[in-house]
Amino acid sequence: MTRWEPGARERLQAAALELFAMRGFEQTTAAEIAQSVGLSERTFFRHFSDKREVLFYGQEQFLQAFTDGMDAAPPGAAPLEVVASALREAASFFPDERRSHSRMRQSVIDQNPALQEREQHKLAGLAATVAAALRARGIGEPAATLAAQSGATVFGIAFAQWIRDGETRSLAEIASGVLQELQHLTYAGSSDRVSNTAP
Amino acid sequence: MTRWEPGARERLQAAALELFAMRGFEQTTAAEIAQSVGLSERTFFRHFSDKREVLFYGQEQFLQAFTDGMDAAPPGAAPLEVVASALREAASFFPDERRSHSRMRQSVIDQNPALQEREQHKLAGLAATVAAALRARGIGEPAATLAAQSGATVFGIAFAQWIRDGETRSLAEIASGVLQELQHLTYAGSSDRVSNTAP
Repeated sequence: MTRWEPGARERLQAAALELFAMRGFEQTTAAEIAQSVGLSERTFFRHFSDKREVLFYGQEQFLQAFTDGMDAAPPGAAPLEVVASALREAASFFPDERRSHSRMRQSVIDQNPALQEREQHKLAGLAATVAAALRARGIGEPAATLAAQSGATVFGIAFAQWIRDGETRSLAEIASGVLQELQHLTYAGSSDRVSNTAP
Repeated sequence: MTRWEPGARERLQAAALELFAMRGFEQTTAAEIAQSVGLSERTFFRHFSDKREVLFYGQEQFLQAFTDGMDAAPPGAAPLEVVASALREAASFFPDERRSHSRMRQSVIDQNPALQEREQHKLAGLAATVAAALRARGIGEPAATLAAQSGATVFGIAFAQWIRDGETRSLAEIASGVLQELQHLTYAGSSDRVSNTAP
């Protein structure tokens, strides 16, 4: 007999993260996670297909935030303006009260190469989704893929900074700074292009 | 008894690629690969730790090409100039006679999510190596990581184009074009920055 457990998913997620961080991901079983919050293994598997899934749950909403952000950009916006809009919306998906959760999750992933590969695959999937949305706006290749992957790069760097110990700025603020740095970097590096446009 | 087989590694690689492409990666065993070129399973495992390794052999030389390219950039070069130099050297690692091999390898990887994750992990490792080399040149963060990841992005997009059917340009030529496109893209997208510097 199983019954509906209110808040079971959130309790399982919090418990899993703590056990993964304390004992290691490999050393923790789904049964132990469930048991630690007084739930059955069966309840665990009604919410998650496996223990890895606990760490990657919510990916659809995350992608949706990016997509919503792109939809908010005016028609005809330059590719990187669309990406900037996506980053602003995605950042709102990580309010400051989520920072310690995200930090703990990252420390678990950093300790496990297979989880790292999965995380990189997730960021690659994000870039593919953004590139498709840019192409749907009429932006050609390679501009669409370049802008999308640059957006994923900016997000990744900003996110890593956001969860750093002692960091207090919001993710949106950090992401905006990293995006500006990218623009500065590529402009500063384009000496050929600059000299070509000189008389 | 095992003995040294001249060219065994290359024969195993070619045979593996063909079997992976024909039957699928999962459906092919190390023993079958070895057998198809008249070698023993034992010989296979003297050259490769597993069948996945056949697809990722040569990664150190690939990383070394990037590193050599960065070393060739003059001291004080802008981050993206260093990356451009790395791309030129890395492109020489893929002469046109390797194109059909690379194309077949990619088709195998595209059909297998675990191999895709490994490939993305490889590109992430490349970016980390390049970022470390940029920091060693005195380039700060996030500029070093941004430039390194942008380099990996440009390489990935150029490589995908290079192995496209009907493409005849060299990888160096394509990569140079994609890098220029990135500079154009970020400059065109930096309307805020431009208006900020206007009087």
